[in-house]
Amino acid sequence: MNEVIAADLTDIVLERYSRTPDPRLREILSSLIRHLHDFARDVNLTEDEWMVGIDFLTRTGQKCDDKRQEMILLSDNLGLSALVNTISANVPAGATETTVLGPFYVPSTPERQWGESVLLRPLGDDIPLIVHGRVLGPDGEHIPDATIEIWQTDSNGMYDIQDPDQPENNLRGHYRSRDDGQFLITSIRPTSYPIPVDGPVGELLNVTARHPWRPAHIHAVITAKGYNSLTTHLFDAEDEYLKEDVVFAVKESLIRAFTRIEDPAEAAKWGTTAPFWFLENDFHLTKAR
Amino acid sequence: MNEVIAADLTDIVLERYSRTPDPRLREILSSLIRHLHDFARDVNLTEDEWMVGIDFLTRTGQKCDDKRQEMILLSDNLGLSALVNTISANVPAGATETTVLGPFYVPSTPERQWGESVLLRPLGDDIPLIVHGRVLGPDGEHIPDATIEIWQTDSNGMYDIQDPDQPENNLRGHYRSRDDGQFLITSIRPTSYPIPVDGPVGELLNVTARHPWRPAHIHAVITAKGYNSLTTHLFDAEDEYLKEDVVFAVKESLIRAFTRIEDPAEAAKWGTTAPFWFLENDFHLTKAR
Repeated sequence: MNEVIAADLTDIVLERYSRTPDPRLREILSSLIRHLHDFARDVNLTEDEWMVGIDFLTRTGQKCDDKRQEMILLSDNLGLSALVNTISANVPAGATETTVLGPFYVPSTPERQWGESVLLRPLGDDIPLIVHGRVLGPDGEHIPDATIEIWQTDSNGMYDIQDPDQPENNLRGHYRSRDDGQFLITSIRPTSYPIPVDGPVGELLNVTARHPWRPAHIHAVITAKGYNSLTTHLFDAEDEYLKEDVVFAVKESLIRAFTRIEDPAEAAKWGTTAPFWFLENDFHLTKAR
Repeated sequence: MNEVIAADLTDIVLERYSRTPDPRLREILSSLIRHLHDFARDVNLTEDEWMVGIDFLTRTGQKCDDKRQEMILLSDNLGLSALVNTISANVPAGATETTVLGPFYVPSTPERQWGESVLLRPLGDDIPLIVHGRVLGPDGEHIPDATIEIWQTDSNGMYDIQDPDQPENNLRGHYRSRDDGQFLITSIRPTSYPIPVDGPVGELLNVTARHPWRPAHIHAVITAKGYNSLTTHLFDAEDEYLKEDVVFAVKESLIRAFTRIEDPAEAAKWGTTAPFWFLENDFHLTKAR
């Protein structure tokens, strides 16, 4: 290859983008073009390889619809989502750490009342999970009227939006904290599950000899007026995939042990039935700047 | 941000991809992940900005169909296509330089006979263009039975596949070189044209204050047994956008002057009518390795 011509070309492209009016967009695009060109030069990318990449990205976009976001899944699988989350969260000591949103978030889910179950089918072989806690600010203040959105897979490893056999909004909904910051969630214990492998990201896993599993977790987004919104997970401490989450989203501080409780009196206290799993979990928000 | 955590994360991701069986794929993905992560760290990419990018790439994929390739158009607009072309072509002195394929290539176009016109509508206000030349190898040998695929916009600046008013394969087709390597194309002189701006790439042009114009050119792909396939353009020397092709594909050596000829006897010699534009142009291929 002609090194000089290839380097000149990058300068020409950068010059052409230098008239971008918004300074932040200009900064981002300049860096993106530099890194994209450096990548192509570093590996001496051939036109056939480039075409494989074009086709892969095209099909990744085309796999997306209102219930599936394959491009986010790709970003998750390249570790980009977890990285951006870490970079941009900048979580101070004491606050709950963040992790990725993932491709299965649905906005505007139904409100669930204090202790209402998000499980919209009969329990069957499952037992209830109670998550009780408080939404707290940096000075330990109890935050009232915070929204706690949660979503998780059912015990078959699928989210409602992946599985036509589940009722809409099964294991999905939002709770509100009471005046004293407390919330009470009733659900079931989450299970580990494979990410969808019937699309381009599945092909990527295949050719890179990677497994598709995510450790069991409950997604949560907590929002409250005057505080930064918190996107996080509660990971199950007993899961076998904690050390190799396919999307690189596990953080030590987000791992939680669920306690099995057999006492019917304790169950009644939380408005549920024994036996049940229990987790006491506070969310620590940061003040909005 | 926590620099250590963010750098550690990249190492974890790279380690996870290190089991990729194919060494070339492993090399490409490692470099891609490094550069992608470096980009996100360099600009301190926020989650909102990341989401803009995800949405942009998703819509770029979704804009693609069997007649439109917006992902290639994006690559073209970031200068990546021209760069990969330059890197991978590695054209030796004496051979015709390559340039980008572009998003309007259609495989398996109709064969055109010696001197047959690719213009499938009446001439109207246009005059014919004759391109005559030879397909030659590195030692000056004449290459018989080479395929010369060409495509260009009509005088309204649109390719047949963009314009329902044009006959299918208008200004598109493939010629074959004779035993002496000669070919004879009849067409019309190409015009400068804007790339499609009704999709995500149009949005990119808009926010970066860039114009959408490509200088007038004829696309050509030349293939012959025993030789490397050549993807190139013939640019019109009189075009006002030669110095700022929106997709960065112009190379000095590919600029051609069309000569206007008024002599009916000269026209008859080429099987056309006067006045007409004329270009004598040889394609110089390299030997397949």
